[in-house]
Amino acid sequence: MFPADTLLLILSFAAYIAQAMTAALAAGRRTMDWVGVALLGAITALGGGSLRDVLLGHYPLSWVHDPYLLGLTSGAALLTIALARVVHHFRLMFLVLDAIGLVVFSILGCDVAIKLGEPIVIVVVAGMITGCAGGVLRDVLCNDVPLLFRSELYASVSVVTSAIYVGGQVSGVAHAIVTLVAFAAGLTFRLLAIRFKWEMPKFVYDRDAH
Amino acid sequence: MFPADTLLLILSFAAYIAQAMTAALAAGRRTMDWVGVALLGAITALGGGSLRDVLLGHYPLSWVHDPYLLGLTSGAALLTIALARVVHHFRLMFLVLDAIGLVVFSILGCDVAIKLGEPIVIVVVAGMITGCAGGVLRDVLCNDVPLLFRSELYASVSVVTSAIYVGGQVSGVAHAIVTLVAFAAGLTFRLLAIRFKWEMPKFVYDRDAH
Amino acid sequence: MFPADTLLLILSFAAYIAQAMTAALAAGRRTMDWVGVALLGAITALGGGSLRDVLLGHYPLSWVHDPYLLGLTSGAALLTIALARVVHHFRLMFLVLDAIGLVVFSILGCDVAIKLGEPIVIVVVAGMITGCAGGVLRDVLCNDVPLLFRSELYASVSVVTSAIYVGGQVSGVAHAIVTLVAFAAGLTFRLLAIRFKWEMPKFVYDRDAH
Repeated sequence: MFPADTLLLILSFAAYIAQAMTAALAAGRRTMDWVGVALLGAITALGGGSLRDVLLGHYPLSWVHDPYLLGLTSGAALLTIALARVVHHFRLMFLVLDAIGLVVFSILGCDVAIKLGEPIVIVVVAGMITGCAGGVLRDVLCNDVPLLFRSELYASVSVVTSAIYVGGQVSGVAHAIVTLVAFAAGLTFRLLAIRFKWEMPKFVYDRDAH
Repeated sequence: MFPADTLLLILSFAAYIAQAMTAALAAGRRTMDWVGVALLGAITALGGGSLRDVLLGHYPLSWVHDPYLLGLTSGAALLTIALARVVHHFRLMFLVLDAIGLVVFSILGCDVAIKLGEPIVIVVVAGMITGCAGGVLRDVLCNDVPLLFRSELYASVSVVTSAIYVGGQVSGVAHAIVTLVAFAAGLTFRLLAIRFKWEMPKFVYDRDAH
Repeated sequence: MFPADTLLLILSFAAYIAQAMTAALAAGRRTMDWVGVALLGAITALGGGSLRDVLLGHYPLSWVHDPYLLGLTSGAALLTIALARVVHHFRLMFLVLDAIGLVVFSILGCDVAIKLGEPIVIVVVAGMITGCAGGVLRDVLCNDVPLLFRSELYASVSVVTSAIYVGGQVSGVAHAIVTLVAFAAGLTFRLLAIRFKWEMPKFVYDRDAH
């Protein structure tokens, strides 16, 4: 295994845990019970990869192949309940971990599509679905309009990361280098977007067309 | 066919009908039209098994293999419209039928995963998805936060039922006995939970972390 | 290729574009950003066919096979932003294009299921899912109760179109004739339903049964 792959594997654990914990906080804002917290954590953290696999017909899904992922994600969500009183002190850490999750999941999603021999556009889309769809599921289950559609450069970061990763792979650059560059560029982009509150322009349409 | 299997088959019809009828009542609370009632009934009653099959790559789905299930469930939903004036007299019967549905669907969901050779954890998860996911779809389509995440021991009943069923199968106990014990234990658990208003603790998080 | 098939192909482009543009207007009503507009457009226009394919196990999905569909639909959605000031002048054109989309997608959905050798009921259901499910996804992601469940003869038009198409195919009528008759009948039905505000009866249930 290349060092970059080992790093990705370690970072993917941080990503699963970060996504499950932020989902748990969303569950707490909706006064869900402990079962709801565990379920929402697992669905959010594993949902993006699951949707990608179902859309590409790539079986078995990751958590079916590695059921410990169910324990890891629901466990992280439940742990959040115990840490709820202090968790706001770690707001910055959460944002960084969540950004790492977005970037790492995007890269891993690209990898799956590359191995399936998909065309480049589909590889990028697979990266974006893996990085972003879990949060959409979380918001739909919390009865919100998905944050992804409304604010911040979240999907854009995923697309940029995936495009760099795929572009590098296609150009024949060494895998470890491509992975690290895509990771660093995506993470930097995301953190700058948060720091400087970069946003896409909004589309406001208030004519009653229906 | 073992007597327990025949019993399960009969009870599964009661389960389909009960889930479709409770979905129809939810549709009526949202003032849906007749088509919406029929669709929501079918989606709720068949959605749990469909999600399980899609996630496990188990084709064809039950209603594709047995299209009469579409008629059974949408028909039960439409019948509810005709019975709407008297249906509240049968509130207790609905609760019992819904509890039977939860338990029976959980057992049937385990069976599918066992036949696919899935590991034990995935078998229990398959039981829970089959028993519970239809109601989540119903609540999302009614624009509610899923009841499953917020109250009552619904998912827990499904997990306990599935765990007893799988545990018995693995231990080599006769299939009919395992089925009946899992069914009786799950149903009792659910009815006691309703009767004594057992609930999981809630997680309330009101710091504005985002 | 039969002339009817060529016509269907051309109309299907109009359908993709119309569904993406109406989704963009829905996104604008929710003040989504440009990424959200593009995503909602693509999900709405491609979601019905994708759900059908996932439920029937029919891989690869259309947009995985023809990735240009992603550009067509998200491009049409983004174009809507530029046209927002004048788009209400074309309200009638949108309604007609949307009706064409519903009917054409229903016919194309039937075709997929017929080629898979599905029974007649499933063919009609496949037509309905292809025609209607994209709009349900759009409404769920906009945090609305799906319009499909609440008003107008939308699902009914899809079912009637599909039934005529399948009925004609089974009866051995020439394919081009069946296609044109199903298309004309479905489109007429839909436009009359809009013009005369035909609606299914509503089911109102306000007893607090839970």
